[in-house]
Amino acid sequence: MKDFSSSIYSDSTIGFVSNPTPEPGETITISIRFLQDPGVKSVFLWRLVNCAENYIPMKYVRTEGGLAYYEASTTLNEPKLQYHFVIIRNDELYFYTQAGVFSYVPDYRHDFVIRTDYVKPAWVDGAVFYQIFPERFCNGDTSNDVKEGEYEYGGRGPVIMKDWNEKPLDASIARGMDFYGGDLLGVKEKIPYLRELGVTAVYLNPIFSAYSAHKYDCIDYFHVDEHFGGDEALAELSAALHEHDMKLVLDISINHTGIENEWTRSKREFYFKNPDGSLMGWAGFSSLPTLDYRNEELRDLIYRRDDSVLKKWLKPPYNIDGWRFDVADVFARNDDVQLADEVWREVCAAIREVKKDAIIIGEHWADCHEYLQGDLWNTPMNYYGFGRIIRQFAGLPDLFLERNKDIAAVDKGLSAKEVVARSDDHYTGLPQMIADCQMNLFDSHDVSRVHNYDSVSFEKYRGVVLSYLLFTGIPCIYYGDELGIDGHVLNDSGCRYPMPWNRAGREETGYYALYKRMTDLRKNTKAFAMGGRKVLYSEGKVLAVARFMDDEKYVGIISMEDKAVTIDIPLWQIGAQKAHTDTDEFGRSFTARAQDGVLTIEVPENGAFMIKVD
Amino acid sequence: MKDFSSSIYSDSTIGFVSNPTPEPGETITISIRFLQDPGVKSVFLWRLVNCAENYIPMKYVRTEGGLAYYEASTTLNEPKLQYHFVIIRNDELYFYTQAGVFSYVPDYRHDFVIRTDYVKPAWVDGAVFYQIFPERFCNGDTSNDVKEGEYEYGGRGPVIMKDWNEKPLDASIARGMDFYGGDLLGVKEKIPYLRELGVTAVYLNPIFSAYSAHKYDCIDYFHVDEHFGGDEALAELSAALHEHDMKLVLDISINHTGIENEWTRSKREFYFKNPDGSLMGWAGFSSLPTLDYRNEELRDLIYRRDDSVLKKWLKPPYNIDGWRFDVADVFARNDDVQLADEVWREVCAAIREVKKDAIIIGEHWADCHEYLQGDLWNTPMNYYGFGRIIRQFAGLPDLFLERNKDIAAVDKGLSAKEVVARSDDHYTGLPQMIADCQMNLFDSHDVSRVHNYDSVSFEKYRGVVLSYLLFTGIPCIYYGDELGIDGHVLNDSGCRYPMPWNRAGREETGYYALYKRMTDLRKNTKAFAMGGRKVLYSEGKVLAVARFMDDEKYVGIISMEDKAVTIDIPLWQIGAQKAHTDTDEFGRSFTARAQDGVLTIEVPENGAFMIKVD
Repeated sequence: MKDFSSSIYSDSTIGFVSNPTPEPGETITISIRFLQDPGVKSVFLWRLVNCAENYIPMKYVRTEGGLAYYEASTTLNEPKLQYHFVIIRNDELYFYTQAGVFSYVPDYRHDFVIRTDYVKPAWVDGAVFYQIFPERFCNGDTSNDVKEGEYEYGGRGPVIMKDWNEKPLDASIARGMDFYGGDLLGVKEKIPYLRELGVTAVYLNPIFSAYSAHKYDCIDYFHVDEHFGGDEALAELSAALHEHDMKLVLDISINHTGIENEWTRSKREFYFKNPDGSLMGWAGFSSLPTLDYRNEELRDLIYRRDDSVLKKWLKPPYNIDGWRFDVADVFARNDDVQLADEVWREVCAAIREVKKDAIIIGEHWADCHEYLQGDLWNTPMNYYGFGRIIRQFAGLPDLFLERNKDIAAVDKGLSAKEVVARSDDHYTGLPQMIADCQMNLFDSHDVSRVHNYDSVSFEKYRGVVLSYLLFTGIPCIYYGDELGIDGHVLNDSGCRYPMPWNRAGREETGYYALYKRMTDLRKNTKAFAMGGRKVLYSEGKVLAVARFMDDEKYVGIISMEDKAVTIDIPLWQIGAQKAHTDTDEFGRSFTARAQDGVLTIEVPENGAFMIKVD
Repeated sequence: MKDFSSSIYSDSTIGFVSNPTPEPGETITISIRFLQDPGVKSVFLWRLVNCAENYIPMKYVRTEGGLAYYEASTTLNEPKLQYHFVIIRNDELYFYTQAGVFSYVPDYRHDFVIRTDYVKPAWVDGAVFYQIFPERFCNGDTSNDVKEGEYEYGGRGPVIMKDWNEKPLDASIARGMDFYGGDLLGVKEKIPYLRELGVTAVYLNPIFSAYSAHKYDCIDYFHVDEHFGGDEALAELSAALHEHDMKLVLDISINHTGIENEWTRSKREFYFKNPDGSLMGWAGFSSLPTLDYRNEELRDLIYRRDDSVLKKWLKPPYNIDGWRFDVADVFARNDDVQLADEVWREVCAAIREVKKDAIIIGEHWADCHEYLQGDLWNTPMNYYGFGRIIRQFAGLPDLFLERNKDIAAVDKGLSAKEVVARSDDHYTGLPQMIADCQMNLFDSHDVSRVHNYDSVSFEKYRGVVLSYLLFTGIPCIYYGDELGIDGHVLNDSGCRYPMPWNRAGREETGYYALYKRMTDLRKNTKAFAMGGRKVLYSEGKVLAVARFMDDEKYVGIISMEDKAVTIDIPLWQIGAQKAHTDTDEFGRSFTARAQDGVLTIEVPENGAFMIKVD
């Protein structure tokens, strides 16, 4: 039975909005589609005009694949257009919002939103991020390597790192104090490799002067670490990337510095203090004293002045394209001092003053809707709406729940329905122009790599990688994942192994081909670059999601079931009838039959397919 | 079968939080309860500490009525405590939030919230509001009545009013230009009546100088209209109300003035202009020119200066207890000028600077969560989370949908499940301390009175009035409802009839007794004054909701079914077993039997009961 309700679809992509990033005052046309049905009496575009509601009648324009399209025009007189749809069919009312269909007046928070006061970086459509941990990627200049004994016995050290329980570690095994020589020249050398892989934007972990390998313990925000090649190396890398049409995003912690930062002596007023007067460390790490943004001079230095930290690197000759902010969730908060809202507002404005379309990425692993409405960040590191979910769907412990051993012991992963509910919690609260910017990742310098878990077979992993294409946003590949890089799953160091450039037969592992095909689809197919998205199936541990734009229609299927299952996918809901061929977009053949707009397909144990349909 | 999940309950009332309105730095104890079950392994209070998550183990403390109680203590180091609960039972995880139980990590927006930087007016617990349209309530001083011909031929007028279609009306029948002589002395005279009815707070429609009867067309914010008795009458009324422990809230439109306001000549810069240079009217009414808060002097006069409008009336000798803001939804918005956030922030701060616990009520009929988080309003006129819902449940057209005739034609009212979904949409996003302040109304000067509809029998109406007790917040009685005042349902004037003081046999109609008993329960029963709330049943058009505090437990049942039905109410979920007697709190007998914690009750057509259970 073809259920009318489930056929209703619209979004704020170019597929349904004549210009999804309009100028102030522009008139745009918005459409909606649903099963052609003689019972449909009228369709309205509902919008707010200066917070008063307004119904605009929508006109029928055409039918395609059994779906009737209606449209209406409206003008962006305000910086924010907020809208949904109302359909009258027989004697039923359907309120269609970004959170789906309601039978009653829906909350405003579910409305579609288009903003003219927000600049979506034009390059995010079809973009592919690649995250590099510079010390471990490529050693382009051995002359700047950390010397044997440089830190243990040098004038500056030693820097004693602590483990999660604050137990000091022996320096030789301390997290972050083992050096392999990676640097910015090394990254530059590998630009051809990145291009071949399909990367369009590089995100580098911190590169400013610091002692550790990870460099979150910054001692000088104004200079690139000499071991990475210094400021000049960054200018060169940036120019080379831009020459090849690639973007560059840098990582910074403006939440804390390293204990060896000169400010800890000359500018103690820049820091929060413990009751005993000592500097308060981030998360209790005394080696990472936390900055106190009540201090105006600190704000000046970090982001206000023309030559402030955040502005300096956005300008020539460095010209970076955005910032990723470390521990952005806890930033500017300390009990009775809660300045996050105020300081984030100033930080984001300062950045956009220099570069209107800079991308702003906040490290936040949980619900952070308040930052994602178009006035603050473009995206979090999207663990919450993507990575945590996909990992848990694949049977790995949730990245937060695993921190509590009682809870971790009963974490059974997520069903497909739970995957949909959780990701909807994230995405249905975002304007499309923000959803498009979501930096979707499942691996990073902070979490064990998915493929390094014994429980994750390559079959399962194929589904994980395919999921990059099924969620709106920018896939972010963590360096080495595309080579099935080694690692271990015990602690942070386990996911920061040096890049295995000399690994024999990278093609043979299947990882590279999988990633390469994924980036091809993302970059070269409008459906994946900027298309619509609709969940077509979610039962047990099997998920099927459609991506589409114009005539391009794909259905991705991910099964985390440990047995083969046969499922029915209602292609009619996206106006399709059948699979285009019997081989999927990753070259894998499948068995299916189509009848009446329903595709019945056999999905093997942990199977994953990306099927073109028409 | 007793389902564990549905037995889980907590909230941020005094029933489950040792102090629901704590001071900064205070340590409070928070509890949760659920079916006693040997499978429960551990229970955690989850909270954010400077935006980092923290699990606090909860201890078992006692079992009551089959429900096990667990508790934990935590300290308010930050202005905002945000929390939920995690229960491990057998191998299942239950995340319990204000929006109910989740099987997966819930969105932060569902968390319980307690704030130390927000002052909940202490008097709202158990409060009963009474809304008075002063011109129609009581004529205490005939010497200040509008004289025959005063406006039509006076030097000031005529003021031409327009109907909804902007058609000018003849002045003699114009909305708002028919006068009956009500004034503030009249209100003062009726204080004994209000006390007897159980009123604890009076909300007056505008009283500042204006020509119309409704006085939303203000000509002087700094003076009370002479026809209402002038400034002195207000000082007297306020003193008299306070003497009797009653609060006073005034209504004001700082969105627009009347066209006859002197500012329209001397301070044209205070107003938005049409393209032709004329003053822009609110909602197109040229008689109500709209204020433009880009003007700093206007801000000074309205709320910044010590003698500004909003501050003046909060101070002696007027001492009002709060403000109700007209058309607060559209305030400070005009296409590219969107100052609502900024100006509301300033307005609310200015008010609280003078009176920390003033109540701030915004007229907003739709979703307005952003104003209800503890930093801006205390409450909207709660049409959205209460009045619109209850009216639609009773079979009346939704107050917004009725404005579109196509949509109104298919408005079928709400099912009980839709009532729950819609009200949850409102309430689950509010901190308890804001929920407690919700000004719940179904009638007002702007909507046709429920009992004036032919389709609303007294039986149905009993359910509507009973609903005041089933939703968290302050019942707001619109003057005359308690007497079954006459009216018609065509336009605004229809709900502004003069108070029928001389109506014979007010007791006989049943209205007064119904209201009087409702206010008794609200004021004198902790369960209704400040208690917890849980929906126990919602099928078809029958709703059953429990309210409880300590040993006081009540279940309210409202049926909008046009036939008798028998329903099963799971009293065990609130730790009760049976009805206390076979007569409800409104003196109506019912037929029920209890077994195993389930109350099976016969509910007559459109029946409504408030049953004490234990």
